[in-house]
Amino acid sequence: MASTPQSLPGIDLAEAAELAAQLRVDSVRSSTSAGSGHPTSSMSAADLLAVLIGRHLRYDWDNPRSDANDHLIFSKGHASPLLYSIYKAVGVVSDEELMTGYRRFGSRLEGHPTPVLPWVDVATGSLGQGLPDGVGVALAGKYLDRLPFRVWVLCGDSEMAEGSIWEAIDKASYYQLSNLIAIVDVNRLGQRGPTELQWDLAAYARRAEAFGARVLTIDGHDLAEIDHALAAAGDTSGHQPTVVLARTIKGRGFSEVEDQNGWHGRPFPADMANRAIAELGGERQLTIRGPRPSPAPKPPAAAATGGAGAAGPAATYSIGDQVATRKAYGDALVDLGAENPRVVALDGEVSNSTHADEFAKAYPGRYFEMFIAEQQLVATAVGLSARHYVPFASTFAAFFTRAYDFIRMAAISQANVRLSGSHSGVEIGADGPSQMALEDLAMMRAVHGSTVLYPSDATSTAALVHAMADRAGVSYLRTTRGSYPVLYGGTETFPIGGSKVLRSSQRDVVTLIGAGVTLHACLAAADRLAADDIHARVIDLYSVKPIDTETLVAAAAVTNGRLIVAEDHHPEGGLGSAVTDALLEAGPQKLWVTHLAVRQMPGSGTGDELLAAAGVDAQHIESAARDLLNAT
Amino acid sequence: MASTPQSLPGIDLAEAAELAAQLRVDSVRSSTSAGSGHPTSSMSAADLLAVLIGRHLRYDWDNPRSDANDHLIFSKGHASPLLYSIYKAVGVVSDEELMTGYRRFGSRLEGHPTPVLPWVDVATGSLGQGLPDGVGVALAGKYLDRLPFRVWVLCGDSEMAEGSIWEAIDKASYYQLSNLIAIVDVNRLGQRGPTELQWDLAAYARRAEAFGARVLTIDGHDLAEIDHALAAAGDTSGHQPTVVLARTIKGRGFSEVEDQNGWHGRPFPADMANRAIAELGGERQLTIRGPRPSPAPKPPAAAATGGAGAAGPAATYSIGDQVATRKAYGDALVDLGAENPRVVALDGEVSNSTHADEFAKAYPGRYFEMFIAEQQLVATAVGLSARHYVPFASTFAAFFTRAYDFIRMAAISQANVRLSGSHSGVEIGADGPSQMALEDLAMMRAVHGSTVLYPSDATSTAALVHAMADRAGVSYLRTTRGSYPVLYGGTETFPIGGSKVLRSSQRDVVTLIGAGVTLHACLAAADRLAADDIHARVIDLYSVKPIDTETLVAAAAVTNGRLIVAEDHHPEGGLGSAVTDALLEAGPQKLWVTHLAVRQMPGSGTGDELLAAAGVDAQHIESAARDLLNAT
Repeated sequence: MASTPQSLPGIDLAEAAELAAQLRVDSVRSSTSAGSGHPTSSMSAADLLAVLIGRHLRYDWDNPRSDANDHLIFSKGHASPLLYSIYKAVGVVSDEELMTGYRRFGSRLEGHPTPVLPWVDVATGSLGQGLPDGVGVALAGKYLDRLPFRVWVLCGDSEMAEGSIWEAIDKASYYQLSNLIAIVDVNRLGQRGPTELQWDLAAYARRAEAFGARVLTIDGHDLAEIDHALAAAGDTSGHQPTVVLARTIKGRGFSEVEDQNGWHGRPFPADMANRAIAELGGERQLTIRGPRPSPAPKPPAAAATGGAGAAGPAATYSIGDQVATRKAYGDALVDLGAENPRVVALDGEVSNSTHADEFAKAYPGRYFEMFIAEQQLVATAVGLSARHYVPFASTFAAFFTRAYDFIRMAAISQANVRLSGSHSGVEIGADGPSQMALEDLAMMRAVHGSTVLYPSDATSTAALVHAMADRAGVSYLRTTRGSYPVLYGGTETFPIGGSKVLRSSQRDVVTLIGAGVTLHACLAAADRLAADDIHARVIDLYSVKPIDTETLVAAAAVTNGRLIVAEDHHPEGGLGSAVTDALLEAGPQKLWVTHLAVRQMPGSGTGDELLAAAGVDAQHIESAARDLLNAT
Repeated sequence: MASTPQSLPGIDLAEAAELAAQLRVDSVRSSTSAGSGHPTSSMSAADLLAVLIGRHLRYDWDNPRSDANDHLIFSKGHASPLLYSIYKAVGVVSDEELMTGYRRFGSRLEGHPTPVLPWVDVATGSLGQGLPDGVGVALAGKYLDRLPFRVWVLCGDSEMAEGSIWEAIDKASYYQLSNLIAIVDVNRLGQRGPTELQWDLAAYARRAEAFGARVLTIDGHDLAEIDHALAAAGDTSGHQPTVVLARTIKGRGFSEVEDQNGWHGRPFPADMANRAIAELGGERQLTIRGPRPSPAPKPPAAAATGGAGAAGPAATYSIGDQVATRKAYGDALVDLGAENPRVVALDGEVSNSTHADEFAKAYPGRYFEMFIAEQQLVATAVGLSARHYVPFASTFAAFFTRAYDFIRMAAISQANVRLSGSHSGVEIGADGPSQMALEDLAMMRAVHGSTVLYPSDATSTAALVHAMADRAGVSYLRTTRGSYPVLYGGTETFPIGGSKVLRSSQRDVVTLIGAGVTLHACLAAADRLAADDIHARVIDLYSVKPIDTETLVAAAAVTNGRLIVAEDHHPEGGLGSAVTDALLEAGPQKLWVTHLAVRQMPGSGTGDELLAAAGVDAQHIESAARDLLNAT
């Protein structure tokens, strides 16, 4: 890592005291004006942030996109009045905007911070996520950007009960992220009462140290102590992340509410607010700036860290070869790595199953093992996205359910993250239901702005992995454990939002729709039906969201509304819903749909046995088609 | 807590050594016969389990439902060959079943343990869940059952990277669960390579001690050391949970694979298996039994702990009163608590928002605060269900996404758990998108066997909360932040799977379907349409899953397939999908559906502003109805 540059001078501690008072006053004013918000949770941390902003955070407020800037993440996102009051103090948000915008409709000063603000890296508000996200930002800084910026994360004490916080400290320690500083505002009180550990800072210290952090314990209202601790914390020459444990008082500065229960998330009524402001010395209109970063050195090309070009020529597949889509994912990721030095891969200790290990071998400098910590797996991807990398995170599709809150928040964070879930559905066989993703399509489709892809062969998988690299938002690839025939030659294209019609004639009487393993079953069923001169249209619905409505509407029209959708997923929210939602949205429809899905709790067995038991194999599709035709 | 009863004598250590060898041999044989499974992960823990089963676990194998039994949970569920070999050794599973059933289709000996076996409390296989579930079982034992059983949980070392493990140890410590013993099989190797901490047992010890556990560190292959540690661990007279850290060797007993990478989750080929069995001294057919528990004292009625009858008369509501459904949840929970002493409530530090605090006040002995740890919140409910309690767990609906893997696994565990998610949708207003549940209906509908309820008023909420108490499986109640008019009198009934038709005539030309806040919008829209002599049927779809298909089909028939569904949720997988899935499943349909849902990323604002911006308020429903009628 490059040596730490000299800070430019900031404000002195007397000015910091004035700034802290202003931040408290403005936290009170803004929340009272909005009629909601968390003034007391802001007041406890005001001294910490005044010293940080005024004297330690290296940030060019006129150039928030500068690579040289430190990062500031409010993991306790409910302290947004404090954050926005800081923005006022540094002059990037006006007092008027603060007083008329906070929590109002259409304003960028939302109840919890989101990246609609240029100074916000990631959305917070679901507790225990800002620090995990910060691990991703710090990982990028240390290993990829190789820039001397620091990542300062303000945590609440309540959120220390979230396991994700400990996943984060563990990974920060494992990766020696000395550029990551968590400042924990230990104000003793949660929403409904005292926190678990209250002011037992020694207990917090034991935990953080045991997880590998350097711990600094301070009085969070003693400016000199804060200053000393932040100076030490900002020295990144060690090999540990730093946790600053600050004993603070909730509502600090307004004696009526200090350390009182019952004032979480409650703005003060106007008369109380006036008394608070008076006690705090009245309104101020200070504008201050802290240190600016030294100009960022041109970051080395990330490729240099990963040995771009180590991979051979792009993998291609011959029609009919048996290749698992998870294998094609690994192959494609290696290809992508050669093309784009900003591609980074992560996995949750199953890379030899997801085939992310191929990328790890080809570009070890751009692969980060997250071990079995799926929340941190996704959070790291979010942090890398905030640093403009192109992260791909993989694990068993079932285990992305562990990180659903992080995936949901990734969408609010406007993060561009790519998730690859292997071992979907009952097809996996003997391992049983705990390892079978049967809810993942529903989960991923419901994420705002998400892309959901479910290829059936290696060629389309490779194409879609490349498309994901350029895709904004949360994109998800569902892969399959077993090997199935390659269906497409290398010249085919697979646009996101498209589909492939694999069997088609004007004599088609029924449409069979599948993806992944069920597409192969649809093809087999169509062949059997064709032997009886029953013509079935077969659609490869590799793009589940967005979906190719036009092709579906055309198929429904030709086959008189007769559709069979087969999916290796529970019946709710997956392929079947995607198809019927699209058709009904397209306009009035006469539909006769048979929806084959996994409706019973599966056990163990072979994949074929379980697909048959679930009624989603070729024979059941064929029977369903015959039944549908007999009934109409 | 009652004093610890005397153990009945078990096997001696020489017999335990023989048993351990048999467990290893049978783990090899069963996995090789199945062609899949995890023999090496079983062999590392065989000595630990031989001593535990033979000398410490108090279990009446002929009476697995006895309240006196200790509990044994394999948090490392992939060690199922070891668990099933134990079942053979105690004589409850035959060698034939083990050899022909393991991982086979239709067998109860699934790839990872599930409660289709009578000796299994909870399904495991998604790592980091068995210990959290065990916290729930131990909490029941200590505070509700008040029985002296112990809860022994076998953990893998890889899963110690999951934050949920630390949520569990934290809560076990907070609640002084001296009846909980985690035995960590530290075999150094994960699936794809070394674990993060490898054999750094001191690091594990520091972490577990910092989180409040008593730690015993041993050589996991020294039977005397194991015996000594388990004897100490089983003494529940202290105030801490115990973590036994056992240094072990993966594949122990078969020199070709001992401590070798590349043998995770791989059965040995037949020739290797033969060599392994030979090295282990050949097949054995020992049948052993360890100590049995003293007969369980009649457990005190749980009610005694919680002051049943403390509540006043059941809450009733008058039509037109403004009552939030989350408030009605709290009221109903208090009523239920008086009726049923097995009802237990849990919350994730937001009980003053979810109104679970009303139950906490009425029955403090049956309320457990889980602080901000939603994974443990759900896991505790699963553990309580395993002890036949009737748990209700609440938090903001958005934050149940944090526990989706636990909810999915609860279904596999056949747990009867009730989840109440408040603050759904954009209706919450100023707090912004991080606090808005917009994916929860999709998530919960996709869970196998789930029940999804979304009442619009206080009366129906109260009825549904009572219905949930008797409901098997995972049931979910979605409540709303704001207060809305009571729609129903106290004599109405609300069966799960039903609906209410609130406006209806044979002149209806369009059907408006809503739930929660959008039902009120549908009613307002219907009133405006009625002013123009346009008759709209209005359906309160309080039961989203199961759904009242009959009423929907009838409405579609009367209104010529014209439906408007409005929901405060993303468009995928929620109310709209539930309605169209049900209609299409019912048979051929001619449908013209307008689906109003939250399609853009919301910000802050008032609830009314955000409902209008999302296009799901009364005005948009009215307009959609007029548009639909104009177009048809």
